[in-house]
Amino acid sequence: MLKQQKNSNWKDKLHEIIYEADTPAGKLFDIVLLIAIVASIILVMLESVDSIHTKYDSFLDISEWVITILFTIEYFARIISIKKPSKYIFSFYGIIDLLSTLPKYLAIIFTGTHSLVALRALRLLRVFRILKLARFIGESNNFIRALKASRAKIGVFLFFVLILCVILGTVMYLIEGGDNGFTSIPRSVYWAIVTLTTVGYGDIAPHTPFGQFVASIIMILGYGIIAVPTGIVTSEMTKATIDTNTQSCPNCLHDGHKDDAEFCYHCGTKLN
Amino acid sequence: MLKQQKNSNWKDKLHEIIYEADTPAGKLFDIVLLIAIVASIILVMLESVDSIHTKYDSFLDISEWVITILFTIEYFARIISIKKPSKYIFSFYGIIDLLSTLPKYLAIIFTGTHSLVALRALRLLRVFRILKLARFIGESNNFIRALKASRAKIGVFLFFVLILCVILGTVMYLIEGGDNGFTSIPRSVYWAIVTLTTVGYGDIAPHTPFGQFVASIIMILGYGIIAVPTGIVTSEMTKATIDTNTQSCPNCLHDGHKDDAEFCYHCGTKLN
Amino acid sequence: MLKQQKNSNWKDKLHEIIYEADTPAGKLFDIVLLIAIVASIILVMLESVDSIHTKYDSFLDISEWVITILFTIEYFARIISIKKPSKYIFSFYGIIDLLSTLPKYLAIIFTGTHSLVALRALRLLRVFRILKLARFIGESNNFIRALKASRAKIGVFLFFVLILCVILGTVMYLIEGGDNGFTSIPRSVYWAIVTLTTVGYGDIAPHTPFGQFVASIIMILGYGIIAVPTGIVTSEMTKATIDTNTQSCPNCLHDGHKDDAEFCYHCGTKLN
Amino acid sequence: MLKQQKNSNWKDKLHEIIYEADTPAGKLFDIVLLIAIVASIILVMLESVDSIHTKYDSFLDISEWVITILFTIEYFARIISIKKPSKYIFSFYGIIDLLSTLPKYLAIIFTGTHSLVALRALRLLRVFRILKLARFIGESNNFIRALKASRAKIGVFLFFVLILCVILGTVMYLIEGGDNGFTSIPRSVYWAIVTLTTVGYGDIAPHTPFGQFVASIIMILGYGIIAVPTGIVTSEMTKATIDTNTQSCPNCLHDGHKDDAEFCYHCGTKLN
Repeated sequence: MLKQQKNSNWKDKLHEIIYEADTPAGKLFDIVLLIAIVASIILVMLESVDSIHTKYDSFLDISEWVITILFTIEYFARIISIKKPSKYIFSFYGIIDLLSTLPKYLAIIFTGTHSLVALRALRLLRVFRILKLARFIGESNNFIRALKASRAKIGVFLFFVLILCVILGTVMYLIEGGDNGFTSIPRSVYWAIVTLTTVGYGDIAPHTPFGQFVASIIMILGYGIIAVPTGIVTSEMTKATIDTNTQSCPNCLHDGHKDDAEFCYHCGTKLN
Repeated sequence: MLKQQKNSNWKDKLHEIIYEADTPAGKLFDIVLLIAIVASIILVMLESVDSIHTKYDSFLDISEWVITILFTIEYFARIISIKKPSKYIFSFYGIIDLLSTLPKYLAIIFTGTHSLVALRALRLLRVFRILKLARFIGESNNFIRALKASRAKIGVFLFFVLILCVILGTVMYLIEGGDNGFTSIPRSVYWAIVTLTTVGYGDIAPHTPFGQFVASIIMILGYGIIAVPTGIVTSEMTKATIDTNTQSCPNCLHDGHKDDAEFCYHCGTKLN
Repeated sequence: MLKQQKNSNWKDKLHEIIYEADTPAGKLFDIVLLIAIVASIILVMLESVDSIHTKYDSFLDISEWVITILFTIEYFARIISIKKPSKYIFSFYGIIDLLSTLPKYLAIIFTGTHSLVALRALRLLRVFRILKLARFIGESNNFIRALKASRAKIGVFLFFVLILCVILGTVMYLIEGGDNGFTSIPRSVYWAIVTLTTVGYGDIAPHTPFGQFVASIIMILGYGIIAVPTGIVTSEMTKATIDTNTQSCPNCLHDGHKDDAEFCYHCGTKLN
Repeated sequence: MLKQQKNSNWKDKLHEIIYEADTPAGKLFDIVLLIAIVASIILVMLESVDSIHTKYDSFLDISEWVITILFTIEYFARIISIKKPSKYIFSFYGIIDLLSTLPKYLAIIFTGTHSLVALRALRLLRVFRILKLARFIGESNNFIRALKASRAKIGVFLFFVLILCVILGTVMYLIEGGDNGFTSIPRSVYWAIVTLTTVGYGDIAPHTPFGQFVASIIMILGYGIIAVPTGIVTSEMTKATIDTNTQSCPNCLHDGHKDDAEFCYHCGTKLN
């Protein structure tokens, strides 16, 4: 019984270190994890540069193993220290953590037997470790909340943009034709998106005067309708900002009262 | 009499399926229609890709016939099930529906007798089927409303941008001249629009130092005045968002209540 | 005496036609003027296209004369019909109207005696006729007002952007050097402006990995600080929109009261 | 004793001229300083243009010496006229002022002994003189305040954009591969940033249909999420604008009065 309690204490401590950031040990854990993630991302990136890959092959391999083992330890520590491991394992972060650790181990198993492309894709999966960083932003963030609140409206807007691009792309395909780079509708739609979003690569550009005229209209349209998603998010945010009265009702504890409110809008109690 | 009522019932049922989305049959109809539209757009797009066109010619032709027949049935079903067919036929969606169905039939009639270009344009008309999708967005949408409300103001803004581009384009035509790609005023105006809207293809770019100096000013101008349409739409939307609740208190007549308010914030009376 | 009154009446009528748009004659005048301006701008543009210039030389010349004579008549009519001609002549529109009319006359006088460049610049001056269109937008426009109100703040912002571009341009000149297209600081600053404003021609682009890293930072900066001018104009506009209560004080006639105001903020009179 | 007071008076006067802009002498000093800074920046820029450098070498050298000596005098005058010189020397502007003056002197000392690159970097350091201009904007500026207030939120946003670009860059590296210009992950991430921020150089552009499809998604994403930083800054600014008046009515304690309010909008009491 005593031993179990001791054991439990040890687990509690681990839980505190890993899942909370209040204690010095918890802060240290977070910082080490942060450095490991960033280092890991940089490693994956450098590995893809040919000149670096051939030169520092063994160094990259060893570093990768060190990080993989660190992440493996973290993964099991997270499972052990939580009361319901299944809750963590099947959570968004649990899956990301698993995917961050597996590739290096799988690379040993499948080496030689599978094609290079599959192996390469597997290795690159490690880049998704960057999503482990999402833990440090947190759900409560204002920016994330605003983005979620205006998700549906921005969705409709992007759908509208897509319809516009399909029509404009087809029109340009007809005007310019294959000789000027508009070889097919999908390619013309791609060009319309490049233009409307004001990216403007210039790999495909209209050459006929009429094509340039239509392109001008698309650009001015794109320059004008950019205002719409902005307006959506801003009004969403301003609303949240203006309604923010930190006062909470003494009776029902509802907050978010209007600035000049004298009575709680939820239970009718007089506010002080 | 009984037969007519039965007939009427049958029409009512069809009307319910086609024009409403509340019943399971209505929902199914909407989903099938949605899939048919998207499939049709993808078909038109793929047809324009040369390599796909030559390879899967017969498959594309058959698929196109299936979709055309589906749309034909839909068109007549819409006419039959509505009380005043003329109201539908001459509505925006009625015309779009007709134009979505005709091209394939016309293609048989005119084949061989007309030039390839006209036929190609006719075939591409099918892309406008995408406008059938507009039905699913709906008029009541916030985004569409805001766009309509600020239409006039954005119009004035774009007119202002156009005047600016004509003047700046002419100035650049004088500075850079034909040797640097600014061969005519229309072309220079096209370049000014490309630059001011921050698209920046790079197919025409200033080469003289003074031209680059003026171009810099245009870019910074473009970067600065993008704020104006945004400001217009946003203030329009914020106003709409803040004023959302038109309800006024039955006791003290104060309005501007929060959307989820149950009690008046001014006098504490219960709101209906 | 009677003759003078008659004369005066005739002048009044002309004044009404030219300076007001309420009467049918005034509206007609405005429409004719609008068409003449747009036609004139299109003429100047087409003249600069070599292939059109050589083909339709005489047609363009005659059309230009017709428009010039029309504008000459308009200019004198404006002077005659106004009570204080000097007030019009030295106004913004007076000068624009004069400059719109002169070039064609000057072209006869100076032909042959001056260089082609000066003559060309003179001819292109006609493009400024587009500013005559500004009359139709009007001063009272919301958009123009908001632009004026936030002029100073946007000025500071653009000044800030310029400082940033000079520093970043110099840094990139040092990193990339002349071999990669960054041949001088002015050119590098030009590139920094092209990048920060998200225009991105691609005529100059970083080639070294470190240069691309710094360029990435500049782009993300540019993508982030675009929010600032937008925020300035929007808050300016929202303020104007929210404060808009059409109610005016029965005592002092001040308007712009808060929506829930019960007393005039200026004189303290109870509002109805 | 008298002498010291006289000395002190002389120092006070200098302090007034240098640190304040109220007196005519202070204004003159500011204008001269402004001209000197701008002239200096232009000199550094022109020096980097090869054709100008070789032609006007001696003129540029002399001008640079004149400005350097002017700045040296300014630097010592600032030290002398302030009561606690250390406070100025180690301030932001103190360091900028020192760095603006040193390069020319150091260039004499190190000439010939060091490599050209180090010398060039040293010379270019003079561009940071532009930061001396920051003095004229001032801390109290609305724009600077808003930027500071939303710094943290914009930071989170840019962090989010960076994560997105790393993932999208890696995906595109896998799709397009080295043959289409996506030779390594860092380069692909660079491309993703160029695309997402709507800069769009076009030096690297997707060539495979699937790559162009993913690129389209990135562009539309970039076009949509630009709204977020805008929303953040705008709501921050609108809040500041709306809340401007902290004054509350002495009678009924209502606040939120208009800036030019003389009477309480709620009870009609005169505001102080």
